[in-house]
Amino acid sequence: MRDITVLSGGHGGSKFISGLLHGISTGRIPGIEEDARVTVIANTADDLWMHGVKVCPDLDTVMYTLGNGFDHDRGWGRKGETWSIKEELEAYDVPGTWFGLGDRDIATHLVRTQMIEAGYPLSQVTTALSERWLRSVWDDRVRLLPMTDDRVETHVAVKDADSPSGLSVVHFQEYWVRLRAGVPVEKLIFVGQDESRPAPGVMDALLKADLVIVPPSNPVVSVGTILGVPGIREGIIATPAPVVGISPIIGGHHVRGMAEQMLAAIGVGATAAEVGLHYGTRGAGGVLDGWLVDAADADALESLHASGLKAAAVPLWMSDDDSTADIAAAAVGLVAR
Amino acid sequence: MRDITVLSGGHGGSKFISGLLHGISTGRIPGIEEDARVTVIANTADDLWMHGVKVCPDLDTVMYTLGNGFDHDRGWGRKGETWSIKEELEAYDVPGTWFGLGDRDIATHLVRTQMIEAGYPLSQVTTALSERWLRSVWDDRVRLLPMTDDRVETHVAVKDADSPSGLSVVHFQEYWVRLRAGVPVEKLIFVGQDESRPAPGVMDALLKADLVIVPPSNPVVSVGTILGVPGIREGIIATPAPVVGISPIIGGHHVRGMAEQMLAAIGVGATAAEVGLHYGTRGAGGVLDGWLVDAADADALESLHASGLKAAAVPLWMSDDDSTADIAAAAVGLVAR
Repeated sequence: MRDITVLSGGHGGSKFISGLLHGISTGRIPGIEEDARVTVIANTADDLWMHGVKVCPDLDTVMYTLGNGFDHDRGWGRKGETWSIKEELEAYDVPGTWFGLGDRDIATHLVRTQMIEAGYPLSQVTTALSERWLRSVWDDRVRLLPMTDDRVETHVAVKDADSPSGLSVVHFQEYWVRLRAGVPVEKLIFVGQDESRPAPGVMDALLKADLVIVPPSNPVVSVGTILGVPGIREGIIATPAPVVGISPIIGGHHVRGMAEQMLAAIGVGATAAEVGLHYGTRGAGGVLDGWLVDAADADALESLHASGLKAAAVPLWMSDDDSTADIAAAAVGLVAR
Repeated sequence: MRDITVLSGGHGGSKFISGLLHGISTGRIPGIEEDARVTVIANTADDLWMHGVKVCPDLDTVMYTLGNGFDHDRGWGRKGETWSIKEELEAYDVPGTWFGLGDRDIATHLVRTQMIEAGYPLSQVTTALSERWLRSVWDDRVRLLPMTDDRVETHVAVKDADSPSGLSVVHFQEYWVRLRAGVPVEKLIFVGQDESRPAPGVMDALLKADLVIVPPSNPVVSVGTILGVPGIREGIIATPAPVVGISPIIGGHHVRGMAEQMLAAIGVGATAAEVGLHYGTRGAGGVLDGWLVDAADADALESLHASGLKAAAVPLWMSDDDSTADIAAAAVGLVAR
């Protein structure tokens, strides 16, 4: 298998891809050529405009992680980051300083914003930014695509006693960063999704792939929003490539983020089995051929097999690139012919 | 005299105003009340868009200087500045990194750009930014106005052997910062000036002033551009207040900047006398009642007096707020009744 396509959110997805690339280039993933090319289709429904600049958290997390610019100690943003602008915006007492933008990160957003205002679609902007982060490191072995060039934004309806309707609707980032995912979610609203179209290259990356991977990203607000772009789900159903996913839920909990809250909002239980069944089996309306769960979730295998999914249970903690490469190898092994 | 209006460029003007305010509040300027109010009408013809943000160098130099945020050691920009964004923009290899924007400075431009894109005129944006820098320090004793809300930009035609016409036209900042004012100037072009209007408050600040001061700012690209906004020169000619200026040329040279080159471009000699005569005498088509020159330029007094200007020669080096307050006192003394 030479052409691998991965649907990705931010942290979980980029960590997985980092391990996948490590595994590929060290030849430890049987069935994948060492010169394989990885296309990442990233979620853009978390994107927002802040302080006048366009911020694309998942695209940037993938870029920074694969381009050796990610701050692994902090767990988000740029390494060597400085915070002068945040201090200044607080001194100006402008709204929105709850969303911590570092100075280096803002430089990326300034370049992106200028290109968007000059008329370039997000996919071309992403290619331009990737010159620095991906092409210089990986040459043509890694390609990053936004799921769409259109505006899609996840909004969250939360209880608000001060509002006449009893609800407030906030941008996903406000729910996640300002409210720390700490208030009950009444409803998720995917603004613009029904009218969005896959970005150039996305459909080809699915239909011409040798393998499609759904990494341990958030099944609702990362992978779910990618699958919600009209055409993408159909492309995954139609591709001749096998499709394999890795559970982001281990032992009934997300490893990081707020998948539990998001799954609850759409009525799916936060278990490895229920998430696998939520994605569903290809040929039965779903998108997966295989679903890898953690060793702690081996009891999920029976119901997964019963649904027609290939499934296995292996350790899923991505503690370093080596262990993540092993996870990738297990996922590939599950669906490789 | 209680209402003082000052036409200002960046560095020279703000340094003068700082000393003026010091002199006023310590009661060392005879004829000016200690609770006098100073309105600054600042040049905006140096303004530019860089990396997608609106930069107003003279407005900001005045704000930062009077608001204790100016870096006096570097001689421009914010104290405590950091340079992460500049590094990043260089790493992205985008054009325009010759114009050094610091991170803290960019925060100001982000706030400004957002307000401008939301539809606020520059004068209202400036009032909002002044809350932090001026109002918090000076209450209602200092007010900052842009000369106009309209786009006026100084462009410079320079010799360019590679161009078919033999000329290139660059933004003033490109001439000054990138080319370091080191190439001969063929012509100055004030884009948009003829169609510009004085910003709200500007005409009142001139017509209702008790005193108008032209500080030692650049007579061509700072004060000259302010006077070039249709209505402003007429307001200065019509105001009942006396108008006094301080020479930016000492001993045939500018103290800082590129006044010599700019004066050459409009055919005015770089001497204290010629600059005073260039501004001219009120009642004879000019804008001044008095003109203060440096002690080294006492030989200019004869021709200045002959033109009808009140004139005196005193030390004009603004080495600190005390010496600058003395200069302000001498200027006021020249025209006070």
